[in-house]
Amino acid sequence: MPFIHDDFLLQTKTAQTLYHEFAKNEPIIDYHCHLPPDEIATNKRFENLAQIWLYGDHYKWRAMRTNGIDERFCTGNASDWEKFQAWAKTVPKTLRNPLYHWTHLELARYFGISDRLLNETTAKSIWDECNAQLPELSTQAILQKMNVRIVCTTDDPIDSLEHHRNLAAQSNFPVKVLPTFRPDKILFIENAQTWNAYLDKLSAASGVDIRSYHDAILALRKRHDFFAAHSCRLSDSGIETMFAEDFTESEVKAIFDKARAGKSVSMEEALKYKSAVMLELGLMNAEKGWTQQFHIGAMRNNNSRMMRLLGADSGFDSIGDLPVATPLAKYLNRLDDQNKLAKTILYNLNPRDNEVFATMLGNFQDGTVAGKLQYGSAWWFLDQKDGMEKQMNALSNMGLLSRFVGMVTDSRSFLSYPRHEYFRRTLCNLLGKEMEQGLLPDDIHLVGEMVRDICYRNAETYFGFFND
Amino acid sequence: MPFIHDDFLLQTKTAQTLYHEFAKNEPIIDYHCHLPPDEIATNKRFENLAQIWLYGDHYKWRAMRTNGIDERFCTGNASDWEKFQAWAKTVPKTLRNPLYHWTHLELARYFGISDRLLNETTAKSIWDECNAQLPELSTQAILQKMNVRIVCTTDDPIDSLEHHRNLAAQSNFPVKVLPTFRPDKILFIENAQTWNAYLDKLSAASGVDIRSYHDAILALRKRHDFFAAHSCRLSDSGIETMFAEDFTESEVKAIFDKARAGKSVSMEEALKYKSAVMLELGLMNAEKGWTQQFHIGAMRNNNSRMMRLLGADSGFDSIGDLPVATPLAKYLNRLDDQNKLAKTILYNLNPRDNEVFATMLGNFQDGTVAGKLQYGSAWWFLDQKDGMEKQMNALSNMGLLSRFVGMVTDSRSFLSYPRHEYFRRTLCNLLGKEMEQGLLPDDIHLVGEMVRDICYRNAETYFGFFND
Amino acid sequence: MPFIHDDFLLQTKTAQTLYHEFAKNEPIIDYHCHLPPDEIATNKRFENLAQIWLYGDHYKWRAMRTNGIDERFCTGNASDWEKFQAWAKTVPKTLRNPLYHWTHLELARYFGISDRLLNETTAKSIWDECNAQLPELSTQAILQKMNVRIVCTTDDPIDSLEHHRNLAAQSNFPVKVLPTFRPDKILFIENAQTWNAYLDKLSAASGVDIRSYHDAILALRKRHDFFAAHSCRLSDSGIETMFAEDFTESEVKAIFDKARAGKSVSMEEALKYKSAVMLELGLMNAEKGWTQQFHIGAMRNNNSRMMRLLGADSGFDSIGDLPVATPLAKYLNRLDDQNKLAKTILYNLNPRDNEVFATMLGNFQDGTVAGKLQYGSAWWFLDQKDGMEKQMNALSNMGLLSRFVGMVTDSRSFLSYPRHEYFRRTLCNLLGKEMEQGLLPDDIHLVGEMVRDICYRNAETYFGFFND
Repeated sequence: MPFIHDDFLLQTKTAQTLYHEFAKNEPIIDYHCHLPPDEIATNKRFENLAQIWLYGDHYKWRAMRTNGIDERFCTGNASDWEKFQAWAKTVPKTLRNPLYHWTHLELARYFGISDRLLNETTAKSIWDECNAQLPELSTQAILQKMNVRIVCTTDDPIDSLEHHRNLAAQSNFPVKVLPTFRPDKILFIENAQTWNAYLDKLSAASGVDIRSYHDAILALRKRHDFFAAHSCRLSDSGIETMFAEDFTESEVKAIFDKARAGKSVSMEEALKYKSAVMLELGLMNAEKGWTQQFHIGAMRNNNSRMMRLLGADSGFDSIGDLPVATPLAKYLNRLDDQNKLAKTILYNLNPRDNEVFATMLGNFQDGTVAGKLQYGSAWWFLDQKDGMEKQMNALSNMGLLSRFVGMVTDSRSFLSYPRHEYFRRTLCNLLGKEMEQGLLPDDIHLVGEMVRDICYRNAETYFGFFND
Repeated sequence: MPFIHDDFLLQTKTAQTLYHEFAKNEPIIDYHCHLPPDEIATNKRFENLAQIWLYGDHYKWRAMRTNGIDERFCTGNASDWEKFQAWAKTVPKTLRNPLYHWTHLELARYFGISDRLLNETTAKSIWDECNAQLPELSTQAILQKMNVRIVCTTDDPIDSLEHHRNLAAQSNFPVKVLPTFRPDKILFIENAQTWNAYLDKLSAASGVDIRSYHDAILALRKRHDFFAAHSCRLSDSGIETMFAEDFTESEVKAIFDKARAGKSVSMEEALKYKSAVMLELGLMNAEKGWTQQFHIGAMRNNNSRMMRLLGADSGFDSIGDLPVATPLAKYLNRLDDQNKLAKTILYNLNPRDNEVFATMLGNFQDGTVAGKLQYGSAWWFLDQKDGMEKQMNALSNMGLLSRFVGMVTDSRSFLSYPRHEYFRRTLCNLLGKEMEQGLLPDDIHLVGEMVRDICYRNAETYFGFFND
Repeated sequence: MPFIHDDFLLQTKTAQTLYHEFAKNEPIIDYHCHLPPDEIATNKRFENLAQIWLYGDHYKWRAMRTNGIDERFCTGNASDWEKFQAWAKTVPKTLRNPLYHWTHLELARYFGISDRLLNETTAKSIWDECNAQLPELSTQAILQKMNVRIVCTTDDPIDSLEHHRNLAAQSNFPVKVLPTFRPDKILFIENAQTWNAYLDKLSAASGVDIRSYHDAILALRKRHDFFAAHSCRLSDSGIETMFAEDFTESEVKAIFDKARAGKSVSMEEALKYKSAVMLELGLMNAEKGWTQQFHIGAMRNNNSRMMRLLGADSGFDSIGDLPVATPLAKYLNRLDDQNKLAKTILYNLNPRDNEVFATMLGNFQDGTVAGKLQYGSAWWFLDQKDGMEKQMNALSNMGLLSRFVGMVTDSRSFLSYPRHEYFRRTLCNLLGKEMEQGLLPDDIHLVGEMVRDICYRNAETYFGFFND
């Protein structure tokens, strides 16, 4: 029996029934990812397996570095084949890491290879067979092959959205590719130089001459409107912990003016400014009926030496441990208190905070939308069987699993769609086991429909993508 | 087979034996709950299932709000039947939440209904059948039906304890209903107005004219004595983290005077005052030989809008993440250093702190009483199979499970007693499985007697309820 | 079947095969423990079971105190037989605590007793049978019987290492006993008196007259060299959280001078000083090619009363909850930024931080050494099946389990070597189960060789003990 087989991860008969009859055929709504819209718009094809699979994949680079592989084979100037070899040699060392499962799921689902495990010995045959298939695997072909209905990319407010426009005009490509508003850069007021440069770009994009805090918010709002006009339905923020300091408008204006004049601001001042901007963004999201996402808890760019060499997103981030409960409650309450709390998805990176997040939701569920506050699916370092199960357990114990909008790839790679399959198998395995143990009623329809909801229908309803 | 059957949760033969032969028939000592003593004293009966089951139950309201149910059906002016319908509609959406198990256990144990699952379709028949039985289910009848020997309610120091006196005089009602001293309100010095109003009431209750810090402590002590004279054996405090700041007596006196004069105090001042009061309370508890309980880690009333509408305890609390280890160790050490540390039960709400709590006990176990420091059973948001198992695992790994005083309902509802059954099944399931796996000796007597201890006998011995 | 049998903890056929064919016969490299080198050098024998098993064992004392046993039988003046009786009486109360497993594994492996469980009834027969065997169980005989190749003790920089020299010269004793450099005492500048006394001893040991910060570092370096000349390959630090404050050299010099003059320094000053010393130590370790260990997260000596009576390491420590991510990242980055980060093992005591530690590694893996940054095996309070499994799960999910250098006893007792067996059984049980579930490939060679690596070969390669 091949490693990846029909009932992979499905350890009971009931789990197998749940997956095959209720989960497998549901389409995918990938409401949060980092796919490059230009590569979809141009229907890009890849030259070889290294380019589609290793380029830009910091999960694999980290594993390779840990395995004692020189940087030359990760991000350096080794040939694509040499890089692939180095990866193939590392794969057997990743046993129990999600990379081991992902790797073989991806070989099976994209390339039909499930008779071999990837290692040094099989590297050449797999390289050749996959490369031969790549001409058929354009980005658009992949999304259709994977049964994806919606892709939400992650975009800076200054983005022209030209690729999204282009895609919307391609009548022969049925997948909706929508932008997500991710305004992180306007927050980094600590670095006056890059922040001012960014404001200048925002000024150009919005047509607003940004001289004051008020101008900046106006410019953001113009871009928010522009994104909305391009069918954007979500915003996203990546922050170490929520910004929810007390501030007055005059304080924030003064802090802004100081930084806009190129002077440096204190930590306290930066926090006040960020808290003000986050509040404005929350108000905009509520007014538009968008869903706002907060990815909370990453500690980024911890390796200065490699940051200088490679820049951000190269595999030198880890999990932070700042306090999260108080600022998060304060922020959400500020918005709710004005009846201006948008639908919200909270993702945490430190699993020690799972229960804080799962119970935070309940403070602001108001009965207007089922599952208005969502506990986001297991993210980044937690995106494996263990992490997913813990997220689902916390959500189940302290909220309603049945109202969960489910999985996202959160990926930069077109080869990551089997993560949805992985999630679905994990979900069905959990539920099937508990049905057989008598922890859930032995009613396949009751549980199966919940599976279908979590895999697809909740997201379909919740985000309103199909309301236009 | 009905969902709730004889071996519900008991996944091995050994677990079944442990439960049926050692756990099931043990009486219940519910040493911490929030049942209203007047409703016991008057032997209250309930008009319908909504009144006994939904009124005051913020767990259910949270689930309903999350399910998109309007507030009218939770705490509003919908009819009792409409509220019950809304709840019945929500129940199938609570799969994997403890509410699903509790709901069906409660229907089975109080009303003998185990042939149906509650949902929209069955709502009417269940409503009718339960309502028909309510005349037999007076509060006193329930406590006897559930084999409860002791109930410890939770009472403010200013309480007259008239209902407890009344109950003690009811010779035909064999259940002991004892008060618990919960002096939280005297701590909230931040709000000078409500705090002063409370001190005035304490003054009236104690007969002490409270003009100074010393008067306030004297008044507390008088009420402590009064509670002791009414067979009180426990105190309780609900705090976000322990108060254990350094302070001098003169500082505390000055802070008290300032607040008593209606002026506001700083955060630092409030903390010093609270630290002083907590220390005094600890000394009183030690002198009386009481057991002191600390419920640590709730972040309360996070939704200002709903707080204004509904007040506290309406389902808008969640799990906090303040540091706990240092202040807790400091507080316990202050008391131990004077040989004045009472028997103590520590409950945590953030499960990330389970191991901190479980190891904290050992710092102050002094060999005078078996299990003198107790790790409290899984509480509030953690009161489900998962949370209980984690509490028992931490306690087992880092302390002695065998000395555990076991479960409490911690509930406001007379229908919550099956939580003891739920706990016992979970305990037996854990132990039975490990016996079959060879992790515990295959000696049913050895393990069974430990089960009996945890279910009843440890609490019987530890608290000294039967020593009078 | 005896409680401790061939397949203890091994719940699948595959786990049994992995253990018996790949793990069981691997030698032991105990690269971190607290065994007293003099007792090895003198090949000490023990008079009775209490002396070899209970003396100095604060795990057992804690359990006994929790069980209501008077201090007289823990550390007091009761007879050895009385102490053993008190322990025997406590053992059945430790069910589910690792002590229960350890106790019976140790009786089986050292004394061949597996037909009885220890309790009050069997105490006398076990006492007699074990005592009769003790003459054969000298310290050196034990290490050989347990198949130990390397023992790394834990030693203060001022230690003369005479016992290590003596041992190196004993040609008939094949076990290498190497020192570990543990410079904790130089950090405690808060207590000017003990710190100055320690500096005086360091002065004597190093031959450096310590008048300035520079002198102190020079003295440390001389001892570092001295340890290196005695085959030391590791350093170790025990800290509540990493010290990584910003400081300037002139600040640190001034702080040192102040404390050396007997004046007290502030918390901030102490932190700057400690941060400077830790950085120097990191540089020394890198230059030598040593492996540095950091044991992070214990909150020590929480019971002042017992500290006065018994001193440190008497069972009054627990798990702390200080923030760890930011200072740890900052410290490692400081060293890495100079290309001076030594091989490093990070151990955490609060399991809530498992994922922070497991992801921290990846920030500094540089491809020069496989598994350069290591996530240390489950330590102290976490050293049980549960804790080990969680450590292995975090490491697997976020790093490479295959590169793990595995278990240490971290023990003061010669009877603790079965902890390696316990670890190996737990590892094999985990992997065997996942092979049978299809989560790992059904390839006994692939997984078995990984087992062998983790049990022995990774440590053999990583530390370079055999490179001399």
